[in-house]
Amino acid sequence: MVIIMKLDASESDVEKVKAKIAQKGCHPYLVYGTQKLAVGVTGPTTQLDEEEFLIMDSVQEVLRVSKKFKLVSREVKSEDTIIDINGEKIGGKHLTVIAGPCSIESRQQLFDIAGPLKEMGLKFFRAGAYKPRTSPYAFQGLKEKGLELLSEIKKELGLMVITEAKDTETLDAVAEVSDIIQIGARNMQNFSLLEKAGRLKNPILLKRGLAASIEDLLMSAEYIVSQGNFNVILCERGIRTFETYTRNTLDLNAVPVIKKHSHLPIFVDPSHGIGIWDKVPAMAMGAVACGADGVMIEVHNKPDEALSDGYQSLTPKNFEKMLHKLEQLAPIVDKELDLCK
Amino acid sequence: MVIIMKLDASESDVEKVKAKIAQKGCHPYLVYGTQKLAVGVTGPTTQLDEEEFLIMDSVQEVLRVSKKFKLVSREVKSEDTIIDINGEKIGGKHLTVIAGPCSIESRQQLFDIAGPLKEMGLKFFRAGAYKPRTSPYAFQGLKEKGLELLSEIKKELGLMVITEAKDTETLDAVAEVSDIIQIGARNMQNFSLLEKAGRLKNPILLKRGLAASIEDLLMSAEYIVSQGNFNVILCERGIRTFETYTRNTLDLNAVPVIKKHSHLPIFVDPSHGIGIWDKVPAMAMGAVACGADGVMIEVHNKPDEALSDGYQSLTPKNFEKMLHKLEQLAPIVDKELDLCK
Amino acid sequence: MVIIMKLDASESDVEKVKAKIAQKGCHPYLVYGTQKLAVGVTGPTTQLDEEEFLIMDSVQEVLRVSKKFKLVSREVKSEDTIIDINGEKIGGKHLTVIAGPCSIESRQQLFDIAGPLKEMGLKFFRAGAYKPRTSPYAFQGLKEKGLELLSEIKKELGLMVITEAKDTETLDAVAEVSDIIQIGARNMQNFSLLEKAGRLKNPILLKRGLAASIEDLLMSAEYIVSQGNFNVILCERGIRTFETYTRNTLDLNAVPVIKKHSHLPIFVDPSHGIGIWDKVPAMAMGAVACGADGVMIEVHNKPDEALSDGYQSLTPKNFEKMLHKLEQLAPIVDKELDLCK
Amino acid sequence: MVIIMKLDASESDVEKVKAKIAQKGCHPYLVYGTQKLAVGVTGPTTQLDEEEFLIMDSVQEVLRVSKKFKLVSREVKSEDTIIDINGEKIGGKHLTVIAGPCSIESRQQLFDIAGPLKEMGLKFFRAGAYKPRTSPYAFQGLKEKGLELLSEIKKELGLMVITEAKDTETLDAVAEVSDIIQIGARNMQNFSLLEKAGRLKNPILLKRGLAASIEDLLMSAEYIVSQGNFNVILCERGIRTFETYTRNTLDLNAVPVIKKHSHLPIFVDPSHGIGIWDKVPAMAMGAVACGADGVMIEVHNKPDEALSDGYQSLTPKNFEKMLHKLEQLAPIVDKELDLCK
Repeated sequence: MVIIMKLDASESDVEKVKAKIAQKGCHPYLVYGTQKLAVGVTGPTTQLDEEEFLIMDSVQEVLRVSKKFKLVSREVKSEDTIIDINGEKIGGKHLTVIAGPCSIESRQQLFDIAGPLKEMGLKFFRAGAYKPRTSPYAFQGLKEKGLELLSEIKKELGLMVITEAKDTETLDAVAEVSDIIQIGARNMQNFSLLEKAGRLKNPILLKRGLAASIEDLLMSAEYIVSQGNFNVILCERGIRTFETYTRNTLDLNAVPVIKKHSHLPIFVDPSHGIGIWDKVPAMAMGAVACGADGVMIEVHNKPDEALSDGYQSLTPKNFEKMLHKLEQLAPIVDKELDLCK
Repeated sequence: MVIIMKLDASESDVEKVKAKIAQKGCHPYLVYGTQKLAVGVTGPTTQLDEEEFLIMDSVQEVLRVSKKFKLVSREVKSEDTIIDINGEKIGGKHLTVIAGPCSIESRQQLFDIAGPLKEMGLKFFRAGAYKPRTSPYAFQGLKEKGLELLSEIKKELGLMVITEAKDTETLDAVAEVSDIIQIGARNMQNFSLLEKAGRLKNPILLKRGLAASIEDLLMSAEYIVSQGNFNVILCERGIRTFETYTRNTLDLNAVPVIKKHSHLPIFVDPSHGIGIWDKVPAMAMGAVACGADGVMIEVHNKPDEALSDGYQSLTPKNFEKMLHKLEQLAPIVDKELDLCK
Repeated sequence: MVIIMKLDASESDVEKVKAKIAQKGCHPYLVYGTQKLAVGVTGPTTQLDEEEFLIMDSVQEVLRVSKKFKLVSREVKSEDTIIDINGEKIGGKHLTVIAGPCSIESRQQLFDIAGPLKEMGLKFFRAGAYKPRTSPYAFQGLKEKGLELLSEIKKELGLMVITEAKDTETLDAVAEVSDIIQIGARNMQNFSLLEKAGRLKNPILLKRGLAASIEDLLMSAEYIVSQGNFNVILCERGIRTFETYTRNTLDLNAVPVIKKHSHLPIFVDPSHGIGIWDKVPAMAMGAVACGADGVMIEVHNKPDEALSDGYQSLTPKNFEKMLHKLEQLAPIVDKELDLCK
Repeated sequence: MVIIMKLDASESDVEKVKAKIAQKGCHPYLVYGTQKLAVGVTGPTTQLDEEEFLIMDSVQEVLRVSKKFKLVSREVKSEDTIIDINGEKIGGKHLTVIAGPCSIESRQQLFDIAGPLKEMGLKFFRAGAYKPRTSPYAFQGLKEKGLELLSEIKKELGLMVITEAKDTETLDAVAEVSDIIQIGARNMQNFSLLEKAGRLKNPILLKRGLAASIEDLLMSAEYIVSQGNFNVILCERGIRTFETYTRNTLDLNAVPVIKKHSHLPIFVDPSHGIGIWDKVPAMAMGAVACGADGVMIEVHNKPDEALSDGYQSLTPKNFEKMLHKLEQLAPIVDKELDLCK
């Protein structure tokens, strides 16, 4: 259930609504639109009666939410969520491009990649410090040392950074450095991690799991949002199908579907999605043409020597070519790609 | 195995090469590039010795094809296949838009839809006369009557038409009317139909099956091509996955992957692929941005009353909006959308 | 809609019911149970009124069928269909084991395999004369010659045979030899073939397609049954999933689900299903324990030299071991495995 | 790499082998068979030379492990792992049946279900205290209170218990009560949880994820084993496919495939797998017939009122019927079902 407040509702009006909700054993959540305020209600809402709220002067409308996901739904908030990170906007008209290597391997490697990306005008840099790997014997990331190197990148190059939090134990350390915290596909239903992330202020980029339906993804976002953190970016990164010519099946259908059902921004990671570097630019273009709010691309200066995922990484030079194409594409789909120039 | 002939090879040179191939129990196929001629070889090629051909004066190069598909492979022919239909080109730099209703329902309906499409500058019109349906009790199409109506469309509006051949029995009748013959997803591995289509001259649009891998699709194209009909257009139209928010999972990854492995044009059918009309334009844009050579779109003047697939059909008005967007997008991906204007 | 006739309804009573149905533009089908007769109705049944039938003295009950499939549904016929082939029963309490090679390769090969199977007491022998193959260059079967060899097997060994009909063109020739006609997975939605098979008397073994849902399979069976041929055996043979350690994912869940929804017998083909010979016996045991009415097993005397599917074929010796296990298992699941002994 | 020690190798011989391995930067793991001891080696094994070990008197054989998973592989240990829990054996000839409700709802409910199961002779009781749920608004379990109730069950009824650990935070509390700790499908690649579980002594039942390949499952088991805890039970519980008539697609193919590749016991959970109570017995029978070492079944005294998964729960009475069938089936597949009688 969502209660839409009138434009002139006062703070004490809102408190009265919240009190009435709590009285019935339900939970109120404030959802801020650009003009109006909505009060989302979760819990045993069948016990609530619309009439009880409609008779209040400050209430404009009461809606039942038909989907299992509530706070992340367009029914609760019809306008796009726009996330502000140090003045940089994500969502709405803004097209965001994030790039960087899969893993942080060394100071040298990190700066060799970040430098050219900064020069191209990029604002967000990705690189993994903690790497969840299928094999216990594979490179697991530089961990704390990696986070320190990311701090240096931030300080010296002025880039904002995104890196993955792979467990609750290291989430706080990641939160201290990261402008955006990534929660990976394999952790999409690690509910303890989601809940803890929901109590942070950092924007969270939540990747879709390999077998997660779009509804599952939105439910996982709901876990974060219901803890109070509305700054969630969804990210499509490929699902598992029978096809073996690609690493995963990047499901671009998810983009317009999510746009319809949710107000949250939706990004696409074509690097993991298709998993073959020379086809990444085509899929990045496809993602933006489908309406994605951003793309996240793996870039490595020496893909052949990368400690992880080299096969799906673009060189800075190939990345730059793609970036120019994306710049041309953006206005056709009513987006702007703001580069620092 | 492929034998690349020298530029100045004469017809009799080619005959000699073909004879040597046949002598060893293999089959020669001529594959025409824009300049050079290649002789593809299928059959027990392990019994052939490269040297035997290389010593012939007219032979420039001998290549082993590593993939299971041969004649449709880029290894055999590196240049894009461009299909010429009455002067209209498909493939290469050309972006083709095909539109029309799922089924032919009546003369009135057909002209009410085809008329506006013709005015928008479209050259190809789709509409089903024979409809393969999951249920034996569902509308199966107007059949011969439908083909007659398509003939009228051709004659009166000057549109080229594409319609589906659902079995070998009706293939010849379809071939008489159709500028392009569609072979549907459920028939992608109806090998008898493929072989018979391979003995026709009409271009064939071959749709990917619901569980067909990209390799399977290319092998099915190989069935057609190996019978002598090189005019094959591949068409991605969605695969089956666990996702239930979309009708199928349109697999746009197939576009750059097929472009890499095959010289044949690849189209996308977003209407069946995602299956929800208001998300079709996003996926059509995505398809073209990924590099598709064409899109095929379901358009109906009264989607609510359509006898089949109304839920995924655009109105002519919504289709026109999308068409303008595609026109803007084409040059960014080095394509031209030629409309009759 | 199904109209259940009273026990003492006469032929002319039934004719009256059929006439009333036809009058409303619908189609009547007689469905014989062990005692009662039902009249299934397909077509625009919403125009029928239950009352019109209930007032007839000979009518006991009128039911609306809730599923899309009608005549194959348990709602229409609650008892198991038992198919009688020359006195041999399929379905109900009967457990059937069919075995033989994937392809007919030669007279020698066929008799070398069929001989030992006959001695083990088997009654049904499988072997492919027409082979639908993914590649146009792969062995396509001995065709007519294969059918002749099957006739010899029937005559000389007294085995009943099952072989695949791959298209409408060769269906009649196959029907002349086959005690059971197989329609393969790739043809499960070749509706023209299904319809033609529905006009034959031969029992049809219909394999589930790689991406076919259980509902799709039942709808395809409905195509056959609605043409008048009620002797349909369904066959689960593996679906396509992301798993690569097995050839397909044999979906044994289909067995109890189909038993619930349909009265038709359900067989399992573990050879194609899991695709690895040494795991076939485990899956055959699993199939029978899940309630399957039969299993179809690939057996080859020289698996290493088989022209197709050798990797999934058991030797006669390994097959015999499995057969003994199945014999022990049958009574636990209330089945009997009748061998000719 | 695996180094097989001779039968008469002394402890100091083993220490020498371990030292040599460590010297090269690799990690030695002791793998105990019933007679022989093997030393598994992980890490940069390409730097190791077989000869260096073969010249040692105490070493019988040196093998390279071809799979990505090492310690869980049959190449490292050819005999079945048999886990001993308070004298009760799991794996090998032993067939284990675990039953109980999805969630602990109350003391009354727990004893009402556990009582009859104890009387039937069951030794292991399952019930969830911490419930990972797709929706943040769904019942999340009684948590600590649930663990206390499980302790009472253990004390009063003498049943051994299995319950799920959903995160690293509550793992220790779960470990204190649980005879077997379950790690759920959604946590199968929660590597931090796996590693922590690997440092416990409790047997771990590791469920296959919805999109996890068999190889992924074995790699996740490797995470646990490589931390020193060899007591891992694998559990197939259904994968995600396109089929909608079942909750998941229980993949019984995994049973013989895992038996081939790994020495660990493999259980099956048909309740989650097929997800429809009246089809659970068929799938449990199928699982055992395929070679499973155990089944885990959801039982509820009032399925209609269950707080979770009631639709897939058997009543005690229906469970008992199935149990008798399983008892009859076990000896046919060379297993024994030991009930306390």
